[in-house]
Amino acid sequence: LKPTLIDAITQDNADEIAHLKNQFEIPAGKIYLDGNSLGPVSISAKHAALEVVQQQWGNDLISSWNKHSWIDLPINTGEKIAKLVGAEPGQLICCDSISVNLFKILHCALQLNPKRSLVLSQEDNFPTDLYVAQGLQRILGVEHCSLLTTSDTDIENQLTEKVAVLLLTHVNFRSGKTYDIEKVTRAAHAKGIIVIWDLAHSVGVLPLALDEWQVDFAVGCGYKYLNGGPGAPAFIYAADRHQNSFLQPLQGWMGHMAPFDFSKKYSPSQGMTQFLSGTPPVISMSVLNSALDIFDHVSIGQIRHKAIALMNFFNELKQASPELDELQLISPKSANDRGSQLAYSHPDAYSICQNLIARNVIADFRRPDVLRLGFSPLFLSFQNIYTSVTELSSILKSKSYRAQQFTAKQKVT
Amino acid sequence: LKPTLIDAITQDNADEIAHLKNQFEIPAGKIYLDGNSLGPVSISAKHAALEVVQQQWGNDLISSWNKHSWIDLPINTGEKIAKLVGAEPGQLICCDSISVNLFKILHCALQLNPKRSLVLSQEDNFPTDLYVAQGLQRILGVEHCSLLTTSDTDIENQLTEKVAVLLLTHVNFRSGKTYDIEKVTRAAHAKGIIVIWDLAHSVGVLPLALDEWQVDFAVGCGYKYLNGGPGAPAFIYAADRHQNSFLQPLQGWMGHMAPFDFSKKYSPSQGMTQFLSGTPPVISMSVLNSALDIFDHVSIGQIRHKAIALMNFFNELKQASPELDELQLISPKSANDRGSQLAYSHPDAYSICQNLIARNVIADFRRPDVLRLGFSPLFLSFQNIYTSVTELSSILKSKSYRAQQFTAKQKVT
Repeated sequence: LKPTLIDAITQDNADEIAHLKNQFEIPAGKIYLDGNSLGPVSISAKHAALEVVQQQWGNDLISSWNKHSWIDLPINTGEKIAKLVGAEPGQLICCDSISVNLFKILHCALQLNPKRSLVLSQEDNFPTDLYVAQGLQRILGVEHCSLLTTSDTDIENQLTEKVAVLLLTHVNFRSGKTYDIEKVTRAAHAKGIIVIWDLAHSVGVLPLALDEWQVDFAVGCGYKYLNGGPGAPAFIYAADRHQNSFLQPLQGWMGHMAPFDFSKKYSPSQGMTQFLSGTPPVISMSVLNSALDIFDHVSIGQIRHKAIALMNFFNELKQASPELDELQLISPKSANDRGSQLAYSHPDAYSICQNLIARNVIADFRRPDVLRLGFSPLFLSFQNIYTSVTELSSILKSKSYRAQQFTAKQKVT
Repeated sequence: LKPTLIDAITQDNADEIAHLKNQFEIPAGKIYLDGNSLGPVSISAKHAALEVVQQQWGNDLISSWNKHSWIDLPINTGEKIAKLVGAEPGQLICCDSISVNLFKILHCALQLNPKRSLVLSQEDNFPTDLYVAQGLQRILGVEHCSLLTTSDTDIENQLTEKVAVLLLTHVNFRSGKTYDIEKVTRAAHAKGIIVIWDLAHSVGVLPLALDEWQVDFAVGCGYKYLNGGPGAPAFIYAADRHQNSFLQPLQGWMGHMAPFDFSKKYSPSQGMTQFLSGTPPVISMSVLNSALDIFDHVSIGQIRHKAIALMNFFNELKQASPELDELQLISPKSANDRGSQLAYSHPDAYSICQNLIARNVIADFRRPDVLRLGFSPLFLSFQNIYTSVTELSSILKSKSYRAQQFTAKQKVT
């Protein structure tokens, strides 16, 4: 039996974190299924932007480095993220972008395994992860860094004692398929392999226990489920047990043990601050820092619980709508095997997506033929899902999308 | 004869760019001699912060990558800076921090000189420049990258055919002493050396003609004289003639020729966009982008002219104030040999600086004993200088600074 609007309302009424959507400023009438690409602005983030620009920068000027603790912003922001990934203090710092951070930690990870040079990754990993490894390979030489990619299903077979570092993304950006971090990490460690997890599509929406799972390194970004704003700085997790065993390659004054001594020789700071290079983008980082405050009022368990319920509701609606049968699920069927998204292939996925957007349902398209829907539980309601499926059905019934051409420039994941 | 307040007012009345200070929001009563450390907020920058957060991110969400050209922000911001450094289009991009950018271009510069490995720099260069080179040396090995530092006066002697890259900062961060970029670049080129200039303390305040001077590479930051906000993104200049001769090492998806094809193999973008690595901090970069609009209304020539006049006025006042004789000028005497700052040594420089700040004259202290005063002509008046010297005289006469101890944490350059 097809769920009804009443069912959606009932689920919204029972949703114990429904009130959190009031913390966000989603434009009236829009349903935002793209929080996995760029999270929306929260009231807290907006106020932070005003506060950092007008009060801190504007009024307190240079003194804000101390007065408003800008100097500690990378650590303070990092520690807020640490709580979301199951990391005890002292192992997470906010800085730079995922790409730049991966360069740093991939080099560190290789230092921990000096007799090996192979970096194993998945061929469908998010491209920047592969590009970083290809860049490091080019500059270090294949004898020191050699990227090997293989298929998703072959990864575990390739975990041999030749591999130095396993570099994987927890949630596939296209399909949403997840790895079991704990299991894969254990299998890698059994072969003496250091692991790096990219948590871009996990942090803030999936339960993570990096310490408990004995993860070595991780990176993630601030602008998806953390709602930190466009291009918000990224982060690095480095397990405490490794922190005295490497030097990160992008040495800069903010990572020096005493930046204001202006000494000629680089001496790395203890702990995570060694991962800093230059002066951080304080405005962007302050906005992310404040955006994270919403997680004080909700657990990742609650978020995940609602995400699964939203996706299940979407699935029930879809299955009861034969006109949607053309959309082929490319995400794993079981919610246990996927992140907070559903992806469907369709030859006209681009046009369907554009039609959805025109009807105020903001979805995402990924080449060549993927319609990607993000379920960000902090601001989505079951009624939003009901409306989205209704619009999607209407588009597919009308076939109007077939008139549209694939022309537009692409936007950012 | 000691100049008077009337003289200051007269000079202000004759100052053809005096009105530009109204574009800034300097806190009432404060005189800000630290624009060389962190430029103040402009009305334009403040509006940009609101616009990017509320309208672009808040309202247009993910569509802003196209609708508000976020995707082109690094190039568009770079081109605004290009006009300030004498660079034709296509040679400048805004991204990351100076430290991260130096890592990229130092590696590129070494590629242009594959038979040499020596990187020559000044021992009193800003530390991060040296740290970056030390980091690159560590990961590439001394046979590929070997940092040699020498004194300011010995640099020209060391320009030999063993040197691959000359890495210098145009304006010394402590003393303000400048190099003659054109002359030094020519001398370096005569020996087949590639040059990299760090323009942190030059851009926006000193006349620069990078194309004309045949500079190879340059970096600079957005948060000093460009007034782009705390930790504003930095930039890279790479001469057009070199752009097909290297690959930058921090490969990331934003530097790919077709990021949204999500191809597995890195293929660098043509031109400056190859220098992009990850997703840029859009909020911080948008603020910088708007802060640059003030340069549409003033030439660097006008700015430099006023800077020299402000420094001369300061000097005249100081020389007519015997109580200030204890302050030893460590900047070059001739304005032609220094940037837009005056630095003085004094055993109690820290306390003197704190006393100035307490009297609303925001100066800067640099270890071990340097009082550093920045002359940022876009918002400073001759009356500001008059008041600053009056306060400084009063502090030195009263000797009150001697009661203060050197304890506080240091702030950021």
